[in-house]
Order: sequence, then structure tokens, then C-alpha cells
Amino acid sequence: MSREQRIQVDKILRQPGPEGPRSVEEIRAGFRQLMARMIVPHSSIRTAPTTLGGRPALHVEPTGRAGRGADGGPNTGTILYFHGGGWVFGSPETALSLTGNLVARTGLGAYSLDYRLAPEHPFPAAIEDTLSAYRALLDRGEDPSAIVFAGDSAGGGLVVTTCLAARDAGLPMPAAILAFSPGADATRTGDSMDTKEGIDPIFTRAALEHTGAMYLAGADPRQPLLSPAVHADLTGLPPMLIQVGSNEVLLDDSTRLAARASAAGVDVILDVTADVPHVFQSFAGVLDEADEALDRAALFVRQRIRAGGTARTSVG
Amino acid sequence: MSREQRIQVDKILRQPGPEGPRSVEEIRAGFRQLMARMIVPHSSIRTAPTTLGGRPALHVEPTGRAGRGADGGPNTGTILYFHGGGWVFGSPETALSLTGNLVARTGLGAYSLDYRLAPEHPFPAAIEDTLSAYRALLDRGEDPSAIVFAGDSAGGGLVVTTCLAARDAGLPMPAAILAFSPGADATRTGDSMDTKEGIDPIFTRAALEHTGAMYLAGADPRQPLLSPAVHADLTGLPPMLIQVGSNEVLLDDSTRLAARASAAGVDVILDVTADVPHVFQSFAGVLDEADEALDRAALFVRQRIRAGGTARTSVG
Repeated sequence: MSREQRIQVDKILRQPGPEGPRSVEEIRAGFRQLMARMIVPHSSIRTAPTTLGGRPALHVEPTGRAGRGADGGPNTGTILYFHGGGWVFGSPETALSLTGNLVARTGLGAYSLDYRLAPEHPFPAAIEDTLSAYRALLDRGEDPSAIVFAGDSAGGGLVVTTCLAARDAGLPMPAAILAFSPGADATRTGDSMDTKEGIDPIFTRAALEHTGAMYLAGADPRQPLLSPAVHADLTGLPPMLIQVGSNEVLLDDSTRLAARASAAGVDVILDVTADVPHVFQSFAGVLDEADEALDRAALFVRQRIRAGGTARTSVG
Repeated sequence: MSREQRIQVDKILRQPGPEGPRSVEEIRAGFRQLMARMIVPHSSIRTAPTTLGGRPALHVEPTGRAGRGADGGPNTGTILYFHGGGWVFGSPETALSLTGNLVARTGLGAYSLDYRLAPEHPFPAAIEDTLSAYRALLDRGEDPSAIVFAGDSAGGGLVVTTCLAARDAGLPMPAAILAFSPGADATRTGDSMDTKEGIDPIFTRAALEHTGAMYLAGADPRQPLLSPAVHADLTGLPPMLIQVGSNEVLLDDSTRLAARASAAGVDVILDVTADVPHVFQSFAGVLDEADEALDRAALFVRQRIRAGGTARTSVG
């Protein structure tokens, strides 16, 4: 039963880690270890290392039937994926269950970018890299209306801020934004930062501020590219699907981002699953809610790619 | 292109009606006429008049391939549909494009209830009828975890208030709630009641208060069964998908209902499409956003029926 699954996942995440503050290398290793437990749909995808906009990236392609459209030809469209990890840890490999499940479910290829991390490379290095990657796709002739930005956690914030940076650079918008539990407020002013403390099995305000400070490196968090949920003009952004769990201190990053985007005239779906943790979609294959959320995400991506890529009938 | 479609739909709805206040019969006839223009997927459904819980109802069934599951057998599950019309007008026939499209897309049968209308039968007559209909389904042995409540506008409010009434009567909850542009606040206190006046091509506060008063018939609107978005305890309600357009004075009925349900621990998807009017899903076949929204609604319904109706694997 799913209620039991939600409780089990919570328990897995609450297993105590080492006492005291950990070094950046310990944090990175711990996250690698945790994410290595997630299920990757290897039978439906193949991966290959590549580069994009000057940074390493993982190319994830659908295999066999997953990659063919209704007409038997290959699907067109590209997912540009930004992994999570607080701008300090994580890699395309740690997000491979998420990226792979999106690829398997949509039949689209993805590039998962290995953007530069703090503290070695603080803000705005990550956004410079994600914008370069998008520009590289456009430069090689990909149609922006067939590109979807997707990402989780810090990467969910990056899908939004990369759009803002692209808009400011005069680039066209991608077809859509898909954000799993985005980190979208470096000012940490959401009510859930306090109301979900203790309920969130992963994060505390203190932990987020610890790695967050490495990314900020003294920058004022009250700016659009650091806190888009509270300080950005989101006008002109593409349709957005935000999925989040109710057991997250970051919940209100999502609710405020959704409200702000909606008020700016953006099509927005805010999809809140109760009693699940941060980026619960990682538990695909274990937690039914994860698979269901990924299926909804895949439908959204296919709808937005189709809408952008084909002519439409107008009203008669 | 879809942007042009959105503008066209807005124009259709803004065609001027007769001057001055209309009688109840004129309102009912006008709505019948408008909704008769909507496209019903007749090739995928068949309809038959029936009764449910003592009220007339329309039974809408999928035909041919639409009604068969992956194993070739019939799909199990039932949609209990409540039409819109301000609790004063409308019928199963006026909502047939919506009910029919849900049936065609989910492969599930639906009962669309002809509940009693105001002013002849004010609050709580409609809820008595919808609750009786649900009870009739349960009494004939249908599994509540394979029943989804769906409705538009006033009927979108009824899906919520019927759940509240069912909970208070000690009945089990259905598998899910699907609400298109629900009317969920008889106190009319949403900001959008004023900020969307003039932008909404259909409703004004005055028009809503005119028919709303017929349903209230002097009852205090500050009660859960009249204003669930602001006055109900929504704890224990089933997963909810709310779809709404941004050009609605009723927009904040949806946003507040979603926020309130989410705060009460309910799984909630709030799906806001920009620049479309009240119950834009009626324009399926004409407006791409309508078809896409119905596809998302159908996936949601299938996910919730499947989740309720089959055993799940627990975490190993």
C-alpha cells in the first residue's frame, strides 16, 4: 500500500549520518552513495559522455521502442537536465534515475549537464554553464520549441534562472520548464522553512544555509537569479510544471514560485504530493507516487513539445 | 496557433446577450444554446437515460476500443459527474462534451446527475441529491476506491461538498476529485472577484450574485457546504486535481481551495492555464489547451483508480 511506502521512504532518509559538520568531500561522497541506491531504467536508455557548451555532460537516449514515435520514426525534442545537490554536490550520475526515467517515459533524448559547483565556483558560475549549454543546443540548430528544461532541487531552481538569463540575453524561451522540488529562494523566507522543520526527513534550515553560503559566497540573495520565487519578474517564461512533496522545508519555494509565475501570466501546474520528501521522484520503482508523478511529468513534456513543434488548427 | 485560439474563444464568449436581467427560464435556455455548440465525441461514447438515488441521470459509456483495458477486458471504475450552471441552470446534456470527453479518454463509464436546481430547490437540495447518488453507487456494491467525483463550475464545488457530506455521514471517500473551475466560495471574497472583472469574458460579480442568491435563499454563505474554499476542514479528502483558467473571476476559488486542501494533507494538483476562460475544457476540439487539459485530467483519473483498485508492492 502506498501509505506504507511513504512511511518506509521517510525512514530510509532519516537514517542518521555522521555527527558534526561534514567536509564538502564528505557531503559529495554521501550523496553519491545515497543516489546510487536509486533505480535507473537501464533497459530503456543508453548513456554516453559528451560535452555541451564547454562543460561535460551525459547524453541519455531512449533505446528500442521507447525512442520511437507513433509513426515509427524517432521522437524529436530534447530535455536539458540540471541535477540537484545544493549547487555544491551531485552530478549527472546522481540524477540518472530521474533523467533516465524522463527519457524512458517521454522517448526524448536528454543532456544532463555537469555544471560547475561551489565552493570552488560560486554563483553565478552554474548559471553561466547552463546558459552556455542552452546556447550550444540552439547554435547547433535545435528548435527552442522542442527543448524542455528539467531539473531537481538546485537544478529545479536552475531551470527557472536559466530561462531568466536566456530572456535577458535575448534568446528564445524553451517549450517548457519541469521542476522537481526546486530550490528557488536563497533568502529562505518561506513559512515552510520553519513549519516543516522536523517533518522534513532530509533538510534543516541550518543544513541548507551551510551549503547555500558556499554558493552565495557573499552575494546578496535578494536578486532574481538567486531567489526567483520571490525576486524575479517571471513574465514571458514558458509553461511550468512544479512537483513537490508536502514534507519539505522547501515546499514554499514551489508554492511561491507557482503563484508568482501564474500572476505573471505563465501556464503553471503546481503538483503537491502529501507526506513525501524532497525530490521523491528519485524513488521511482519503489514508491508508487514517484512513478505516477513521473508519468504526469512525461505527459506534460510531450504536450509542450508537441504544441511547440507542430502547426495547430485555428478556430473555424 | 494556440494563442490565436485563446483569443477566438474569448471573442465567442463576449458576444453580447440581451440587455437587462433575464428570467430563470431565459438563463437556462441561453446556456442550453451555448453548450449545444460544444463538440461531443459521439463516436466514442453512448448515452442512456437512467436514475440514480432517485434522480434522473445520464449514463455515459465508452464504446469500442475506448472502453477496453490493456488486457482487452472492460475497464473498471466509475465517474460520478456533476454539471455546472450556478446551481440554477445546466443539465447532464449541457455538460456532455465534458463528461463524454472524460469517458472517451479514460475508458470509464460515467453517471451525470440531474440534481435539483434553485430557485425551485435551493441549498442544500443539490448536495442531498449528489450524496444520494453516491450512496446509490455504494449500495449497489461499487468500490469507493474505483469511483471518481468530477464536475465543472457549480458541479466542481459539488464534488468537494459531496465529499464533505459523505465524510460527515460516515461514508468512505471516493478515489479522487476532479474539479474544472470550481465554484467554491459563496462568500465571494477572492481577490480575483475584483481583479479579473472585465478580463473574465463570462462572469461579473453581479451576475454570480444574482444566481448565487437563488441557491442561498437566505442561508449564511459562511459554512463549509457553501464555501469549502474558505470555511471547510478538508482533512481526509481524496487526491484532488483542480483545473482553472487565469481569466476567471472564480480563479481564487481554485487557488484557495488548493492551498487549503494541501495544508490539510491532501494530494493536490492546481493546474492553471493562462488566458483562458471559465471551464475552457468545454472547447475541446477547438482549443488545444482544452484537449490537453482533458488528457491530463484523464491520466489523473486513471492513476487514482488504478492506485485504489489494485494491491501495491511495498518497499523491500
